[in-house]
Amino acid sequence: MTYRIAVIAGDGIGPEVIAEGIKAIEALTTLQEKGIQFEFVHLPWGCEYYLREGRMMPEDGMDVLREFDAIYLGAVGYPGVPDHVSLWDLLLIIRKQFDQYINLRPIRLLNGAPTVLKEGTVDNIQMTFIRENTEGEYAGAGEWLYRGQPQEVALQTGVFSRHGTERVMRYAFELARREKKTLTSISKGNALQYSMVFWDELFEEIAKDYPDVTTYSYLVDAAAMHMINDPGRFEIVVTSNLFGDIMTDIGAAIAGGMGLAAGANINPERAFPSMFEPVHGSAPDIAGQGKANPLAAIWSASQMLDHFDLTDEGAVLIQAIEHLLVEGEVLTPDLGGDGSTSEVGNRIAQLIQTIQ
Amino acid sequence: MTYRIAVIAGDGIGPEVIAEGIKAIEALTTLQEKGIQFEFVHLPWGCEYYLREGRMMPEDGMDVLREFDAIYLGAVGYPGVPDHVSLWDLLLIIRKQFDQYINLRPIRLLNGAPTVLKEGTVDNIQMTFIRENTEGEYAGAGEWLYRGQPQEVALQTGVFSRHGTERVMRYAFELARREKKTLTSISKGNALQYSMVFWDELFEEIAKDYPDVTTYSYLVDAAAMHMINDPGRFEIVVTSNLFGDIMTDIGAAIAGGMGLAAGANINPERAFPSMFEPVHGSAPDIAGQGKANPLAAIWSASQMLDHFDLTDEGAVLIQAIEHLLVEGEVLTPDLGGDGSTSEVGNRIAQLIQTIQ
Ligand SMILES: CC(C)[C@H](C(=O)O)[C@@H](O)C(=O)O
Ligand SMILES: CC(C)[C@H](C(=O)O)[C@@H](O)C(=O)O
Repeated sequence: MTYRIAVIAGDGIGPEVIAEGIKAIEALTTLQEKGIQFEFVHLPWGCEYYLREGRMMPEDGMDVLREFDAIYLGAVGYPGVPDHVSLWDLLLIIRKQFDQYINLRPIRLLNGAPTVLKEGTVDNIQMTFIRENTEGEYAGAGEWLYRGQPQEVALQTGVFSRHGTERVMRYAFELARREKKTLTSISKGNALQYSMVFWDELFEEIAKDYPDVTTYSYLVDAAAMHMINDPGRFEIVVTSNLFGDIMTDIGAAIAGGMGLAAGANINPERAFPSMFEPVHGSAPDIAGQGKANPLAAIWSASQMLDHFDLTDEGAVLIQAIEHLLVEGEVLTPDLGGDGSTSEVGNRIAQLIQTIQ
Repeated sequence: MTYRIAVIAGDGIGPEVIAEGIKAIEALTTLQEKGIQFEFVHLPWGCEYYLREGRMMPEDGMDVLREFDAIYLGAVGYPGVPDHVSLWDLLLIIRKQFDQYINLRPIRLLNGAPTVLKEGTVDNIQMTFIRENTEGEYAGAGEWLYRGQPQEVALQTGVFSRHGTERVMRYAFELARREKKTLTSISKGNALQYSMVFWDELFEEIAKDYPDVTTYSYLVDAAAMHMINDPGRFEIVVTSNLFGDIMTDIGAAIAGGMGLAAGANINPERAFPSMFEPVHGSAPDIAGQGKANPLAAIWSASQMLDHFDLTDEGAVLIQAIEHLLVEGEVLTPDLGGDGSTSEVGNRIAQLIQTIQ
């Protein structure tokens, strides 16, 4: 059995951290014992490609990607290429066209991970965020009228379909049921009287099918506050595309920082490849210096293993990360160490060999 | 000279906290010495009124309000009245129809105030958030099609006009220039390619008129993270209606909690009355028990004094709050004390008499 992975290492620190994620998977000897192979095919797309070719990926890029079992993405973005170009033409188009409607982001304060919150506040930071990932505020619908004139106006329309909203909510309810966890919906019905009142009504409607799941519903502003002063109250969380974007960065801030924030863009039906990427960006300021923290990329690799039902192997990667954090000897500067990206990756590979 | 203030104490804890704000202003004997009077006219509008009359305020409510020098609002919202009704028909309509396009929220960690952040992270939390308050994501534009059917879709359109965006940005630049502070814009141009790319371009355009002001521009997700792990980097901040809503609740979380979050809705041209309100809601769970923290309402009263150019008196209120926090003897339960709302208000009134 061979899993073929399209690797879009991308820009800035992307290639540096992705290399360590691959190293981690390759350190899993249990895969070989099971006769499972990973084949990584590097696709040199991104902003450098854009500056040369005038596009982020080849014209048939999506067709190329479609043949893979998954996509492993580093980071996209580069000074000189406007962000809305680089992201819409690569990251966001993949999320949408491959119907990766579940953006799954674990927010867990691992043992040994740093947090800016005081002791006592941080017990039990153990959440799974499920962010709608194909429509909503990111639908890309809008107009820009009278450009540069006094009457200029820009309109940005969030599109919330029953189709798109219901499926992400049901996914979240199923997960909450399976894991016997509470489910929290985050919205903003008091101010956004079309999209978010719809969201709230649908959440209530679907909840009727899951009487065994305890639910909560928060306004996004209150939720943002509670993430900081009482994060222990959240278990499984479902929210919109934009709110998920903001809330999971808050999650990163309270649970180890951006260097530990992992994400998976999942098409649950497996009609298309899913995509695994650290949440952080390309960080051009530290690119090429060996300073980038590869742990988020390695955690995303663990999510990829989970996606292939290699959950034991996925768990080994998380254990290795936690072990490394507790041990505290080889860490990148963002975690207060002076280790390099590859030193961290090497130590992780060693730990994987010990643990598995 | 008499300032006539419309008091909409509103629902839940609203009346309790507003009473203490009025007490604080009335404790300012320097006003009498200057021959300045405040006349508070109580308007019993809100959700109770709604349950009786089927509307949040009388039909001529806006005309009534227009005659006042300012509005002092407690909180709106009540179980049994849908939030989007209670808020759109009172709070949001006042913000919009009175063109209160500046929502000014100080985020300052006063001496003695609690914070969930660790020592070291919290030096210098000293920001002023300027939130656009009349349009943007809260424009109220949208559609809700095929209700209840499989093809159901809700559309919510953010409206960003040059008129509305430029004036809030210029207000922020003027403030930054006057106070010799940096100005940070918070947006999301990488994903919202109409509204937020427009926002970013306009911010750059206007910045050219203020070469003396140092500017920064952050994505809202990154900004949310930095508010938690490095809040000292923000001074004056300008952002959209929704982002301001979320970011200032994060601000409350890091700077003393909701019990200390004050806000002003300002029409800078003074064509209409401005409105002063604590950021917190009506908190029906603790209403009527004397547990509500009145400090946010008192801080908002201080903003009202500032608005009338009574800045010395405004500063006295803040000093009294800070003194009370440092002294730590009379505090409401949210701040770890066992004082009641009116005990805190009484102590503030005493302190005001000592300080002024
Ligand atoms: C890069 C950007 C478009 C993206 C998003 O907003 O979704 C990122 O912030 C993320 O969270 O994956
Ligand atoms: C009550 C609600 C509509 C309001 C808002 O979102 O503006 C509140 O959260 C605030 O921040 O003033």
